[in-house]
Amino acid sequence: MTTRAPGDTLRIGIAGFGKIARDQHVPAIAGCERTTLAAVADPAGGLDGTPSFASLDDMLREADIDAVAVCTPPQIRHDVALAALAAGKHVLLEKPPGATLGEVDILSRTAERAGLTLFATWHSRHAPGVEPARAWIAGRKLRAVRVTWKEDVRRWHPGQAWIFEPGGLGVFDPGINAFSILTRILPAPLRVTEATFRTPENRTAPIAADVRFAAADGVVVDAALDFRQEGPQTWEIDVEADDGRLVLSAGGAELAIDGGAISLPPEGEYADIYTRFADLVATGQSDVDPTPFGLVADAFLMARTETVDAFHDPAEAGKR
Amino acid sequence: MTTRAPGDTLRIGIAGFGKIARDQHVPAIAGCERTTLAAVADPAGGLDGTPSFASLDDMLREADIDAVAVCTPPQIRHDVALAALAAGKHVLLEKPPGATLGEVDILSRTAERAGLTLFATWHSRHAPGVEPARAWIAGRKLRAVRVTWKEDVRRWHPGQAWIFEPGGLGVFDPGINAFSILTRILPAPLRVTEATFRTPENRTAPIAADVRFAAADGVVVDAALDFRQEGPQTWEIDVEADDGRLVLSAGGAELAIDGGAISLPPEGEYADIYTRFADLVATGQSDVDPTPFGLVADAFLMARTETVDAFHDPAEAGKR
Repeated sequence: MTTRAPGDTLRIGIAGFGKIARDQHVPAIAGCERTTLAAVADPAGGLDGTPSFASLDDMLREADIDAVAVCTPPQIRHDVALAALAAGKHVLLEKPPGATLGEVDILSRTAERAGLTLFATWHSRHAPGVEPARAWIAGRKLRAVRVTWKEDVRRWHPGQAWIFEPGGLGVFDPGINAFSILTRILPAPLRVTEATFRTPENRTAPIAADVRFAAADGVVVDAALDFRQEGPQTWEIDVEADDGRLVLSAGGAELAIDGGAISLPPEGEYADIYTRFADLVATGQSDVDPTPFGLVADAFLMARTETVDAFHDPAEAGKR
Repeated sequence: MTTRAPGDTLRIGIAGFGKIARDQHVPAIAGCERTTLAAVADPAGGLDGTPSFASLDDMLREADIDAVAVCTPPQIRHDVALAALAAGKHVLLEKPPGATLGEVDILSRTAERAGLTLFATWHSRHAPGVEPARAWIAGRKLRAVRVTWKEDVRRWHPGQAWIFEPGGLGVFDPGINAFSILTRILPAPLRVTEATFRTPENRTAPIAADVRFAAADGVVVDAALDFRQEGPQTWEIDVEADDGRLVLSAGGAELAIDGGAISLPPEGEYADIYTRFADLVATGQSDVDPTPFGLVADAFLMARTETVDAFHDPAEAGKR
């Protein structure tokens, strides 16, 4: 272990080097001047030019890191994060922060007791349209909110069979991104009043879902989630107010008010996340908001489930 | 409205005058010297000798009450409690405290903002064996915990079709009692690691479930819940420690340590609850612990569901 000066960058080890780690975390860590990618741990292979380890334990024991970014499937996120905290590392969690609410609670207590930073990220909250949407909504009288979150699971999660297993959340894996935005931009807390799940006959988690929420101020939010969307992909939140209409689309990267596009800075969700993580570590804080995950759990509590056609993904056969 | 002196008893109005209200709340309120039953609201009928109202709104407007005990089915508990808080009444919630976690959060915020007491009760935590069990467990090294919670739904919930509807929790309606005890007597927080649900082909909520928990200290807890238990009924928690064994049975009313029965005071769960409620109101506090409900939500998140035979209850035909 080398000695660190206070102004040094935060040395990050990535645990779980799959699609999200390669697509988002590697460039974000490299692009953020306050973080450095110092190691990668994954039994299936590492990154050329970066110390790579076949196991988490090896990385925790041998790598020169301050923090672990947990990019594994959610079912093992808890055990990975606990091991990292036990090794004295700060922890950043991809979304969702685990497979259950109980796990998140246990991690929070563990990090607090150890004096380490735990950051449960919600990347969609860092989309460039989110804060302008929140500002527009504040103080307005809303009539209705409609969420449409429809994507092709074969395209965005090729071969990721874990997503339909217990704890994988099915279509709520992307849907929770919409819920993370909703709970940021709407002023009143939400509760689920109705949910219909459509679950393939050969899977455990839903491939599509309709969820109705009531906000504490009376506004009704209807969400239509679908993982079977071929052709154009839709990640949109449509907010109708007494005096106008806001549409947040492309997952929060685009914003229109009363039909006119609003100019936004370029998308930099993960860059923001790593800057925030460095801030949290520097100031000795944690940031864990389980609210979006709680709404997913509530949808599961309220769900009526319909069985639909089996789902097959040719990419699954070739994956570990 | 009459004027109250500070030493007066707490005047309670019961909302939802069904089985649990008649069996438990009425005698407990009458038996507690700090509470008085002042009104009952239920469209299906009231109580001779007590001001009875066909609607909640009528009771809130006309009855001379300080607080509302919400004994409706859980699906409408939230709306009833919100209306009571809006009318300036303290609120006691039967378990579970609602249909979703989001509801509980909204009620907590609302009560706090209004300066009113909200008490989310867990009656099983007041069973006489619970605190002695907690004391025995404290500091011991546990090997395993097994929960067996098996009862006949036709006997304990005759005609209560709501229990198998979304938000009714199915076998978790009694099972959450076990979880409320577990989370009181075990020192470490729990998380759900596996769940298997058995759901009748003509119902939404499970009629039986196996749930495995891991405690943060490594202890594994296995719970077997079944609503189809004819003959002897079982509500038991079996705790195996390195140096002995504790069995809490009859829902917490009986306790045996190393095979020897421990003498306990008589069961007085609801009497305790109303004394505690009067204390909370007198000291301006609330008591809302969503942990047992969170574990149920986590079981729903992790569930693999098997479809089982249709469930029929002859008593349903005669109920509203």
